[in-house]
Amino acid sequence: MLRTNLGQRIPEGMRDLLPEEIALQENLEREVLVLFQQWSYQKVLSPTLEFTACVQPDVEQVDSLYKFFDRDGRILALRPELTTPIARLVSTRMRGANLPLRLCYGADVFRNSSVRYREFRQVGVELIGADQELADAEVIALAVEAIACLGLKNFQFNLGHMGIFSGLLLEAGVEEGFRQKLEEALARKDMVGVERLVQQSGLPERVQELLLRLPHFHGGEEILDEVLDWSSLPTIREAVESLRRIYRYLNYFGVQEYVSLDLGILRGFSYYTGAVFEGYVAGIGFPVLEGGRYDSLYADFGVPQPATGFAIHLGSMLELFPLPSIAGVDILVYGSDPQEIIRLSRALRLQGKKVEMVLETIDRDAAETMARLKSISEVRLAGEEVPENE
Amino acid sequence: MLRTNLGQRIPEGMRDLLPEEIALQENLEREVLVLFQQWSYQKVLSPTLEFTACVQPDVEQVDSLYKFFDRDGRILALRPELTTPIARLVSTRMRGANLPLRLCYGADVFRNSSVRYREFRQVGVELIGADQELADAEVIALAVEAIACLGLKNFQFNLGHMGIFSGLLLEAGVEEGFRQKLEEALARKDMVGVERLVQQSGLPERVQELLLRLPHFHGGEEILDEVLDWSSLPTIREAVESLRRIYRYLNYFGVQEYVSLDLGILRGFSYYTGAVFEGYVAGIGFPVLEGGRYDSLYADFGVPQPATGFAIHLGSMLELFPLPSIAGVDILVYGSDPQEIIRLSRALRLQGKKVEMVLETIDRDAAETMARLKSISEVRLAGEEVPENE
Repeated sequence: MLRTNLGQRIPEGMRDLLPEEIALQENLEREVLVLFQQWSYQKVLSPTLEFTACVQPDVEQVDSLYKFFDRDGRILALRPELTTPIARLVSTRMRGANLPLRLCYGADVFRNSSVRYREFRQVGVELIGADQELADAEVIALAVEAIACLGLKNFQFNLGHMGIFSGLLLEAGVEEGFRQKLEEALARKDMVGVERLVQQSGLPERVQELLLRLPHFHGGEEILDEVLDWSSLPTIREAVESLRRIYRYLNYFGVQEYVSLDLGILRGFSYYTGAVFEGYVAGIGFPVLEGGRYDSLYADFGVPQPATGFAIHLGSMLELFPLPSIAGVDILVYGSDPQEIIRLSRALRLQGKKVEMVLETIDRDAAETMARLKSISEVRLAGEEVPENE
Repeated sequence: MLRTNLGQRIPEGMRDLLPEEIALQENLEREVLVLFQQWSYQKVLSPTLEFTACVQPDVEQVDSLYKFFDRDGRILALRPELTTPIARLVSTRMRGANLPLRLCYGADVFRNSSVRYREFRQVGVELIGADQELADAEVIALAVEAIACLGLKNFQFNLGHMGIFSGLLLEAGVEEGFRQKLEEALARKDMVGVERLVQQSGLPERVQELLLRLPHFHGGEEILDEVLDWSSLPTIREAVESLRRIYRYLNYFGVQEYVSLDLGILRGFSYYTGAVFEGYVAGIGFPVLEGGRYDSLYADFGVPQPATGFAIHLGSMLELFPLPSIAGVDILVYGSDPQEIIRLSRALRLQGKKVEMVLETIDRDAAETMARLKSISEVRLAGEEVPENE
């Protein structure tokens, strides 16, 4: 049935991957997954479809899910990320596994928002059942190594802590609506919006000042002391000292030079509770890597335990890399007798050669032209030479 | 936010893949894709989401699509197969590529029906722009080799031709509704239904007889002569002789012994036009491989050209194979000083070892127990020995 104009297009935010493009994505994914496995992470995979009640129980959230109804009227969604589905998996089928559990994945995620790609590949890790700062440091160091192993030179990580911001707001007793607006403005790095919100907040001047200062605490270990000069609230002190230990561990991992402390970072998912981080690479204006500690998520599945992890938006980074040349075919087999073409091709394949068969009868000149067009270096005649036109 | 009972489950027909399960699926897929590439097929990937107008323009079809509306009210669907999306891709972004074009894929497909798995992995090939019987034989031989390369011993292919059935009905001048009902009954192999339909059809007795006989034409080349004894309609003769040539080519490919001729097979997708085939393996009651010639599909995208191909339902076959053991970690590093644990782990990783770090302070006995539980053969102390409790 003839396709309409619509039927010949792909939906917004979707894309086809041609041979060089899928090869590139798979090469990058393989590099990273090998690294994850070297660090003792085991691969798992959750389904593309989940109940919305799993991946987005809070319907108040801004909605970027692809959703639809199943036959019984329940709402299904395409997974927007893997951390929550893996929490479901670990809390159910993998319940009772030895902790800490190190898992990794490579899978497509789906976000129905105005970003360039609405389906894109993610690779990531989850370290479940470990509350130590050494665990935070392990995943951050692995995140840096993962970006480095892709061959990127120009990248930068920021490391912050949810406890500083939330400690501050908790102590100041701000109401939930204000908190959420402020969080969104900070996550967008919308400094004008942050300033306006803070000035209209009616909060004590000291808290206002610190909130406005927060996004500017960016640098090395010295900023931690600066924060403590501003505030000695116990929750903030605790978060600061935790960050300090993690940051020092990163030095032992040999990755500290790539990581700046940044107390203004807030991640877009609501589940983060502790140290949070993001990675930027030259040429892409949004974080290509996001991660952090999420110590409450597993309790939501009835199996409370701490966890940390990160995801790399691999599918959004393909433009940074040159397309690989595809390992092509070794030999083009042509001739006039199908039986001979098949026999020669079969024999060559048994020798381990990559072989393309010419399906119609052509002469040597035509075979050589075809081989050139397809970058095949060798042509072989099967059986008798085709008589030339004379 | 606490997940409800629903939020802890996965939707019907979906499944999680644990480390051994995803490793198995990936191992099988890798084997098959390497084979496809040896036969000169290049990998491509289409998006998970398509416009329904692409993958199912005929809304009258029995509906097993996962469908939903986008923000502009257009209907999107999760791809139910790859042949049509690849036709869209080849007709648009790859338009003008050298023909014949050999493409392959490995991707999840989605079918919202009562089958066991509603999301499952498919691997397959498309050979586009070739109408030769050698092309049919190439993909059928490759299909047999693909099943064989998985290590399966007990498998069986059936090969038929849409032209015999449709030629017969065309000549008899049956109406579309009857044709469709009969096709469905034959595809289901519902012989009682076929018999009832045929007897009520009012068709000439000779046609009735041949229709009832069709599903029983099953065997080697001799059945082709048998058909010709029954009918000498030109379209049937043409299809029979085409099948004969393809079948002989399969002998040259060394795979004929795995293929029976079966004139009653009809594939479930409406796009097939010529030679069609299906593969069965012991232990699974439905075809795990389906393919055939589809010479009209590309015209539906405005770029008429012949094509053939097949898909293997890899995700439905996992139960046939033993789960592989996952290559585990080489060394478990423990100690009391995070700095020492990190340094030793880093040094060992630089030597190419797979290393798991113990994140809390434990003694040698505990480390050895942990290593045993995780099947890690070596434990290494970082820095000073932890003092024993005495």
